[in-house]
Amino acid sequence: MLIDKLAIIGVGLIGGSLARALKLAGECGTVSGFGRNRENLDKAVELGVIDSYSGDPGSVVDEADVIVLATPLSTFHSLLTGVSGHLKQGAVITDVGSTKGSVVRDAVSALGDNAGRFVPAHPIAGTEKSGVEASFPDLFKDHLVILTPIPGNSDEDIGTITRMWEICGARVVTMSVQHHDRVLSATSHLPHVLAYAMVDCLANMEEQEDIFRFSAGGFRDFTRIASSSAEMWSDICISNQENLLHVIDRYKDHLEEIERLIRAQDSQGLRQLFSRIKSIRDRAVQVSPAEGEEGK
Amino acid sequence: MLIDKLAIIGVGLIGGSLARALKLAGECGTVSGFGRNRENLDKAVELGVIDSYSGDPGSVVDEADVIVLATPLSTFHSLLTGVSGHLKQGAVITDVGSTKGSVVRDAVSALGDNAGRFVPAHPIAGTEKSGVEASFPDLFKDHLVILTPIPGNSDEDIGTITRMWEICGARVVTMSVQHHDRVLSATSHLPHVLAYAMVDCLANMEEQEDIFRFSAGGFRDFTRIASSSAEMWSDICISNQENLLHVIDRYKDHLEEIERLIRAQDSQGLRQLFSRIKSIRDRAVQVSPAEGEEGK
Repeated sequence: MLIDKLAIIGVGLIGGSLARALKLAGECGTVSGFGRNRENLDKAVELGVIDSYSGDPGSVVDEADVIVLATPLSTFHSLLTGVSGHLKQGAVITDVGSTKGSVVRDAVSALGDNAGRFVPAHPIAGTEKSGVEASFPDLFKDHLVILTPIPGNSDEDIGTITRMWEICGARVVTMSVQHHDRVLSATSHLPHVLAYAMVDCLANMEEQEDIFRFSAGGFRDFTRIASSSAEMWSDICISNQENLLHVIDRYKDHLEEIERLIRAQDSQGLRQLFSRIKSIRDRAVQVSPAEGEEGK
Repeated sequence: MLIDKLAIIGVGLIGGSLARALKLAGECGTVSGFGRNRENLDKAVELGVIDSYSGDPGSVVDEADVIVLATPLSTFHSLLTGVSGHLKQGAVITDVGSTKGSVVRDAVSALGDNAGRFVPAHPIAGTEKSGVEASFPDLFKDHLVILTPIPGNSDEDIGTITRMWEICGARVVTMSVQHHDRVLSATSHLPHVLAYAMVDCLANMEEQEDIFRFSAGGFRDFTRIASSSAEMWSDICISNQENLLHVIDRYKDHLEEIERLIRAQDSQGLRQLFSRIKSIRDRAVQVSPAEGEEGK
């Protein structure tokens, strides 16, 4: 068994799915949970996702071999501070946060000398739903998990977290914190912002009622990510502020190039541009890993 | 039988699916096709979608009871001019174009006194694929078709086109040309432009390779519409230029409001905004008609 005692800080879609997958594989003994919502925690016990919970993060982690942070990013610093004095010898801490720069800063500041025991990770999986009831053991199957190791991480700890995700059916890759945050700002954080802005824009138009009535599947697909957790996504936007603002700026340049061609009625230019984009997208989808699941 | 002789001008995804649905329902006798791509037309005959074809639009329509224009918008004027002198007594012409203002202008200019026989229509259905091989009879099932009747249309002709789409399983609604183009600029044309701009933006980043490698389902869903026909969409953008540029402008205002909150690290403000947007989107999806299909 890989993990005798697992602590899940935040028993929602991701934390809950991880516990389910490890239990199902027989690779985890008991699971203790921490969360803010008692009803959700009771549900998690009832569903067999966790075995026990406590409102005190310290007591949830004090016997744990692996501790997984799966709460919104803005809670990380205070939670890591709360567990810092309660880690048992050899315990590994990891997370599932969608940005890594801010997480590593929080870990270094909150854990001090223990920061090397924190192995940052990001499973590229999720749905637009939240809460333990939305969790399921196959959530990570055939998805990528990005590890962004930091100075002080031992090979053994990195190995444990790698193995943990592989047991869930995920493929684990490693990159730097900075590269992760730049890449994800483009592939995940930008589309969320664009989808939020689109729903907001449509909701404010005079024809709002007909707009929603006559929108088809394109709208549904395009805006599905705008149904994600508002708390989680406001935290992500602020945590990855610099990269995200940069990529939004670049995005606006490309949008304005299309506007310019439309305004000039440059049919030939638009056709060439769209045609080039279509080829790129068709090729990109061939290399992108998972089908039909939402990227966090 | 509703239509004895049907002429499909442009035997692609939409024209082909319409012919298939009407044939399957036994509501259409013979189908003649016109197109630019002979290979596609041979395929259409082979698949039983059409019975014959010709490279001369006049001879394709001269015996037809109903003529359906299903080619890119920029071809409408010359095609309507080409068929204008060949219409048999009582023939009805309709189209499937994604914008209606430019189509009506073309019809009035090309058909002259016969313009009243043109009943503009727009089925809100499609996929990102093109060509007769992508066509299937259920494409319009449970989808909306918008009719935008013009002065001179007879109740009988409007009834024929309404019935034609109902046979395909669609629900037919009626609105003005102007209202159609405003609503569709927001629900359909805007998302396409945003998706094209996003793929273009990502393709131009330094980390391009990793960006496409680590993009998940969110990217796939979000950009699916950027795989649509470049010719069709450049025509749509130019045909609905005024409404589209207006809605892009409004969109940028909403995007900039999100940028402002991110820049100010206004966590509370972002959370409230995203939360409001999420409620709107969740509600909108409940009233929007079809699941899992692409809006044109």
